[in-house]
Amino acid sequence: MTEPFTFQLEARSGRGRAGVFTTPHGNLLTPVFAPVGTLATVKAVTPAQLSELAPHLVLANTYHLYLRPGDKLVAEMGGLHNFMQWHGPMLTDSGGFQVFSLASSRKVDDDGVTFKSHTDGSLHRFTPEKAIEIQENLGADIIMAFDECATPYDRPYIERAMQRTHAWAVRCKDAKKRPDQALFGIVQGGIFPDLRIRSAEFIASLDFPGYAIGGLSVGETKEEMHLALETVEPVLPADRPRYLMGVGTPEDLVNGVLRGIDIFDCVLPTRLARHNAAITRSERLNMVNAVYTHDPHPIENNCTCYTCRNFSRAYIRHLVVCKEMLAGILLSIHNIHVLLQITRELRQAVLEDRLQVYADEFFTRLRKNQDEIPVDVRPE
Amino acid sequence: MTEPFTFQLEARSGRGRAGVFTTPHGNLLTPVFAPVGTLATVKAVTPAQLSELAPHLVLANTYHLYLRPGDKLVAEMGGLHNFMQWHGPMLTDSGGFQVFSLASSRKVDDDGVTFKSHTDGSLHRFTPEKAIEIQENLGADIIMAFDECATPYDRPYIERAMQRTHAWAVRCKDAKKRPDQALFGIVQGGIFPDLRIRSAEFIASLDFPGYAIGGLSVGETKEEMHLALETVEPVLPADRPRYLMGVGTPEDLVNGVLRGIDIFDCVLPTRLARHNAAITRSERLNMVNAVYTHDPHPIENNCTCYTCRNFSRAYIRHLVVCKEMLAGILLSIHNIHVLLQITRELRQAVLEDRLQVYADEFFTRLRKNQDEIPVDVRPE
Repeated sequence: MTEPFTFQLEARSGRGRAGVFTTPHGNLLTPVFAPVGTLATVKAVTPAQLSELAPHLVLANTYHLYLRPGDKLVAEMGGLHNFMQWHGPMLTDSGGFQVFSLASSRKVDDDGVTFKSHTDGSLHRFTPEKAIEIQENLGADIIMAFDECATPYDRPYIERAMQRTHAWAVRCKDAKKRPDQALFGIVQGGIFPDLRIRSAEFIASLDFPGYAIGGLSVGETKEEMHLALETVEPVLPADRPRYLMGVGTPEDLVNGVLRGIDIFDCVLPTRLARHNAAITRSERLNMVNAVYTHDPHPIENNCTCYTCRNFSRAYIRHLVVCKEMLAGILLSIHNIHVLLQITRELRQAVLEDRLQVYADEFFTRLRKNQDEIPVDVRPE
Repeated sequence: MTEPFTFQLEARSGRGRAGVFTTPHGNLLTPVFAPVGTLATVKAVTPAQLSELAPHLVLANTYHLYLRPGDKLVAEMGGLHNFMQWHGPMLTDSGGFQVFSLASSRKVDDDGVTFKSHTDGSLHRFTPEKAIEIQENLGADIIMAFDECATPYDRPYIERAMQRTHAWAVRCKDAKKRPDQALFGIVQGGIFPDLRIRSAEFIASLDFPGYAIGGLSVGETKEEMHLALETVEPVLPADRPRYLMGVGTPEDLVNGVLRGIDIFDCVLPTRLARHNAAITRSERLNMVNAVYTHDPHPIENNCTCYTCRNFSRAYIRHLVVCKEMLAGILLSIHNIHVLLQITRELRQAVLEDRLQVYADEFFTRLRKNQDEIPVDVRPE
């Protein structure tokens, strides 16, 4: 691992970890949750509002930004940090997930993937080298190896995709030029423990400054996700951060940290906000519900976010009913705050070696209505 | 005029005026422009962002809030200021304009108006007494007499509507109970100077703490609007503020102050923002235009708003093309700032007795493309 990227493990509690990952734009205090700024904007909030929420990491999407406005334009505007005026640490994914979930007319070969844009049907080709070139143009602090994200149950396909992901990881490492970016490798292998172990061993052998666990939260059960994490955890080097891509819900964060995960990202808080839903420690609230019509309380008592410090459920319900933009704005602020606050608490619990106690209390508080507001939490 | 509402005229420059109107929630330094918070939210911005823009007055709509969430609910939540967390001076209109422009199946009689809601078709009735009751529940600092807003050219109808407006003004004054609200009278009379004079004389005789000029910006020409203002100006008492309702564009503000207007409101800045348009001192920019694709400059050079201090036209165009919420947010912030800044400059020009010079420079700078982005600026 080369400067400026270092990972220092500060404490452990069970398998849970607290650490510091340094980047040219600041430090990630892990565990860390990254709000997603798909198209170079975390939907509905300004960078100033985001700053107040104080995330240590913000994600943007390579596939989306390559298509619009184009990575060359972003580079011309001084890179992502300058373009979107976010001056803290940033991460771009490799585009792999979106090519395999959003694009159409996909043709994969060992060299790369040809696909049609989901926005205008135009034809494009990503290779490992191209994914690195785009990410070097975008200029995030952490960039990701180009991978093939397979569906979780088809073993022959998963094995083929995994082998391609391994070959592509080597090519990404070779293609990478910028010293001010850290390239993370991605472990694949679906729900199969033997494949996960083979993948983690191979990717770890390439000596990346960080490792992502890909191909999860794509249709498998929570038990299968947890088993995959538990399988990979002992194989990955303890002195590098581990990133669980595209996850999660509050309970996913707790379950991930319990299984040694350091970095998370998810569209959940902003997407739920646009579906009128508020995240709390115990449940999801559908703010259109008439029960909130006369409710003078904040979304969540004792919450310190701007929304809860100022506005009643009655006001937010009124905004939701009237389809006012402010509803999505205030709910996004609250929902992002809750996920960031939970990761801050998880970090503190690890530092004080009481992670399991924190997790037990968390799950006791959790009501079982989490699926009443069905929202697709897969990356955009 | 009773405390806490006093108007002190500080300076004149030609017919232009600078003054201070005191309210229980703070002072209006006039000329003043009020952003419109139709449904108890200035669309796309939080109260915190609005505070930074520092408007001295914010408007909300009686008709809309009566329907949703209901004035009784707003009262139960501590009134408009508390409900929407705006703690500066506020004004509510009387609902008259919306009843006559939005509602359907309208039946007017001398006692009031029966109409169907534009949201759900339910049947309602407004009388002068009801309009005051609703506005007392909402609790703004300035409330408006219930008036009948006629189309500008039908003289017999305008005369009948004017007489009704006069009778209703007397009833509103009698119905008003709260001492912490100032009730403004409304002058009608369409484009006919003799009717405007009769109306201004009658309404002025009722000794309101402020006077509004209604029934303008509803289809008449700019020349007709200016003539109406010039006709009414000498008739209205000089020691009370004059409010030109539902106006305007940057040039309307300058033209209004030149003709003795002190208070303006308009949906223009936020509505243009939602149509991807930016207001500048010289023109309107359609931010979807490909000419901005690579433009690293702010919307307006030397503009001190949050948007222009941080973001390029290229970034804003990207947000507009991708239909990101942040586009409407950043454009709303900029557009509101421009109109507030122009009124601040107009005030300064009056204080320094150089209003005509300011206006001449303003109109010289103005490019003649103002109508290239057609946007309905009538109140919502």
